[in-house]
Amino acid sequence: MITEHNRLAPGSTIGILGGGQLGRMLAVAAAQLGFDCVVYEPEADCPAGRVAAKCFTAAWDDQEALAAFAACVDVVTFEFENVPAPSLAFLAERTSIRPGLKSLQLTQDRLVEKQFIQGLGLETAPFAACDTREDHDRAVATIGVPAILKTRTLGYDGKGQYRLSQPSDAAEAWAALGGQPAILEGFVPFDREVSVILARAMDGRFAAFDVTENVHQGGILRTSTVPAQISEALGDQAVAAAAQIAAALDHIGVLAVEFFVVGEGLVINEIAPRVHNSGHWTQDGCAADQFQQHIRAVAHWPLASTKRHATHVLMTNLIGNEVEAWAELSGQPDTFVHLYGKRAVREGRKMGHVIRI
Amino acid sequence: MITEHNRLAPGSTIGILGGGQLGRMLAVAAAQLGFDCVVYEPEADCPAGRVAAKCFTAAWDDQEALAAFAACVDVVTFEFENVPAPSLAFLAERTSIRPGLKSLQLTQDRLVEKQFIQGLGLETAPFAACDTREDHDRAVATIGVPAILKTRTLGYDGKGQYRLSQPSDAAEAWAALGGQPAILEGFVPFDREVSVILARAMDGRFAAFDVTENVHQGGILRTSTVPAQISEALGDQAVAAAAQIAAALDHIGVLAVEFFVVGEGLVINEIAPRVHNSGHWTQDGCAADQFQQHIRAVAHWPLASTKRHATHVLMTNLIGNEVEAWAELSGQPDTFVHLYGKRAVREGRKMGHVIRI
Repeated sequence: MITEHNRLAPGSTIGILGGGQLGRMLAVAAAQLGFDCVVYEPEADCPAGRVAAKCFTAAWDDQEALAAFAACVDVVTFEFENVPAPSLAFLAERTSIRPGLKSLQLTQDRLVEKQFIQGLGLETAPFAACDTREDHDRAVATIGVPAILKTRTLGYDGKGQYRLSQPSDAAEAWAALGGQPAILEGFVPFDREVSVILARAMDGRFAAFDVTENVHQGGILRTSTVPAQISEALGDQAVAAAAQIAAALDHIGVLAVEFFVVGEGLVINEIAPRVHNSGHWTQDGCAADQFQQHIRAVAHWPLASTKRHATHVLMTNLIGNEVEAWAELSGQPDTFVHLYGKRAVREGRKMGHVIRI
Repeated sequence: MITEHNRLAPGSTIGILGGGQLGRMLAVAAAQLGFDCVVYEPEADCPAGRVAAKCFTAAWDDQEALAAFAACVDVVTFEFENVPAPSLAFLAERTSIRPGLKSLQLTQDRLVEKQFIQGLGLETAPFAACDTREDHDRAVATIGVPAILKTRTLGYDGKGQYRLSQPSDAAEAWAALGGQPAILEGFVPFDREVSVILARAMDGRFAAFDVTENVHQGGILRTSTVPAQISEALGDQAVAAAAQIAAALDHIGVLAVEFFVVGEGLVINEIAPRVHNSGHWTQDGCAADQFQQHIRAVAHWPLASTKRHATHVLMTNLIGNEVEAWAELSGQPDTFVHLYGKRAVREGRKMGHVIRI
C-alpha cells in the first residue's frame, strides 16, 4: 500500500540507466519534484548527464562503476530496457530497480515477450522462433510474406530488422541479421496504429493517458496524434489490455503498449517497459506528463491525473537533419519545440520533437 | 529584428548567475529547448547546480572564476538581481548579459527604481531617501505612519525591512537597519495586490501572462491566484504599465511588476527584472511557462503563447517546515508539487510550491 510514510522523500537520489533523451526528460521531471538524479551511460557527454547531479560514463560491464553508481542512489530506474542482464543482476543485489527485473527480462527478448502476451490471452501478430536457417525457412513457409525478421534481442527504431516481401528474400534476411537468434513476425494489415501509455503505482493502481494514434515510417515513429480516431469501446479495450500486461509484470512505472488496429480488433505489436516516444505529447497536452508520472510511480508517490487539457495534440519527431528547422519551428504559434541536446546529427537519429496543440 | 539567423542555436550554453530555485527552474526550461546551462553561485551544493552541465561555486568577486564562467557560456542571464555591480561589469566585458545592465542597475537600488517609475509618469507609494538619521526623522514626519523603512539595496522576502506603526518607532527602525542608506516608504492602504509577469523579446515585442492576484504575509508571498479579481480595464492598465517599464529598461527576458490596487487605481510596489515567484502558476497553468519564456527571450527566440489552459489556478508557497506536508500534498487531486532540492529547512525559506488547477 502507498502510505505517506513509504514514499521516497524529496532530496533522495534517483539513478537512471541510460543517458539519452528519455533519461534527460526523466531527470528534468525528477528535479521538479525535488529529487536529484545520477545517470549511468557508456557514451560520453550524454544528453541526460548535462541535467543530472552526476553522470557515470562507463561500460555496462564495469562493476566498479556500477557499484559506485548503486552506492550513491536510493532507487534505480531506466530509460533503456536493453541493459545487459548481468549488469542488472549486479545492481539488483545492491539497490532497488523499478520497474522490476520481470518487466525487463520479458521485454528484452521479442520471442519471450510475444509468448507472454499470448499467455495472457491477448493477440499478437503470427510469429515463429528462428534459431537456425532451417527454422527461418520453415517460418517463412508457414507465416508467409510479407513478414519481418527481427533479432530476438536489442535493435530499435528499425535497426536489427529485415522485411521480407517475397519468399525468396529469406536468404538475404537471414544474412542481414548475421544469423542471430531471431523471430519472424507475420505482417498485420492494420487500419491504424495506436498506443497506450500507462503508469502503474506500487499499490497496483494505474492511470492511462488518452490513447494515442501513431504513424511510423521505416520503423521510426513520425507522429503521434491525440485523440486517436477509434471508438471509445476499442480505446477502453486497449487500456484494459495494457493494464492487464502491467499487472502481470507487476510493473511499477510507465509502460507503453503499441497496438495494430484491425477493424474493431486489437493486435499487440510491442511492449516498452518505460516512458515512450508516443507519450511525448503529454508534455504540452497534460499538466503532469509521462515523465513525472514515471518518477511518481518509481518514488512510490500517488499517480497524478492524466487529464488532457488540449483538445487536439500532434507530436512530430525531428529525425536527423529535420532538427535544422528549429529556428522556423520556434516561431510557429502554439508549437512547442523540445530538443535533446545531442551533439551530432545522424540519419535516423531522434534529435527532438515538436508538439502542436 | 528577430530573424531565423540570429537566434541562439540549440547546443549553445546559457550561463545563470545564482543557483537557487529560480535558477533551477530556468535550467530545466533551457534543457527542454536543447541548451546546456552553467550555473555560478557562491553557496555550495546549490539547487540549480544539480540540473546543470557545470556549476562554479565561487564568490561574486572571484575574478578567476568569473572569467572561466564567461569563457564557457554563450550568453549570461540571472535569477538574482543583486549580483554586485563590479562582477557584472567584469562579465559584461567578456560576454552578453541579458537582460542588460540597465535593468539590473535600476532595480538594485530601491530609491533609483522608485525615481525611475515616477519618471515614467507611473504611481508609486510616497517615499523619501534616508541617508542619515536626520533624513529618516524628517521622512517619518512628512510621510507619516504606518510606513516601512527598507535598505536601498539588497534584502528580499521581508529581510532588510522594518515596519513603523507609530512615529516613536523611528529610532528602533533606524537601528534595526544598522544605519545603511535606506528609503522610507509610506503605506498604501490597498484593496488587493496583483502582479504582471511579462516577457520582452529583442525585437521589442512583449507577451504578458494573465494578471495574478497575490497575498503576502510578513513580506513573503503566500499565494498567487489567477484570474485576479479586478476589472478588465484595470488589468489592461497594469499590463500597459509593465510594458512601458520593460521598454524603458530595454529589457530582454521576463520582468515582474508588483502593484497595489487601490479602488480602480494602480500603485507600483516593486519591479523584479527576472522570473518571479508570482509567475510560478504558469508552470501548470500554461503550456509554456515563465521560465521557458525567459529562456526564449534571452536566446533571441520568438516568445511563446501565454494562453492559460486552466480556468482557475492557485499557487501556494511552501515556506519553512510547510514543505514537510509534501507527502500529503503529492496525493491531492489536480495538485502539482514543485520542490526545490534545498538541503536544509529554515524558517522563512521558500522550499517549494504547490499549484492547484
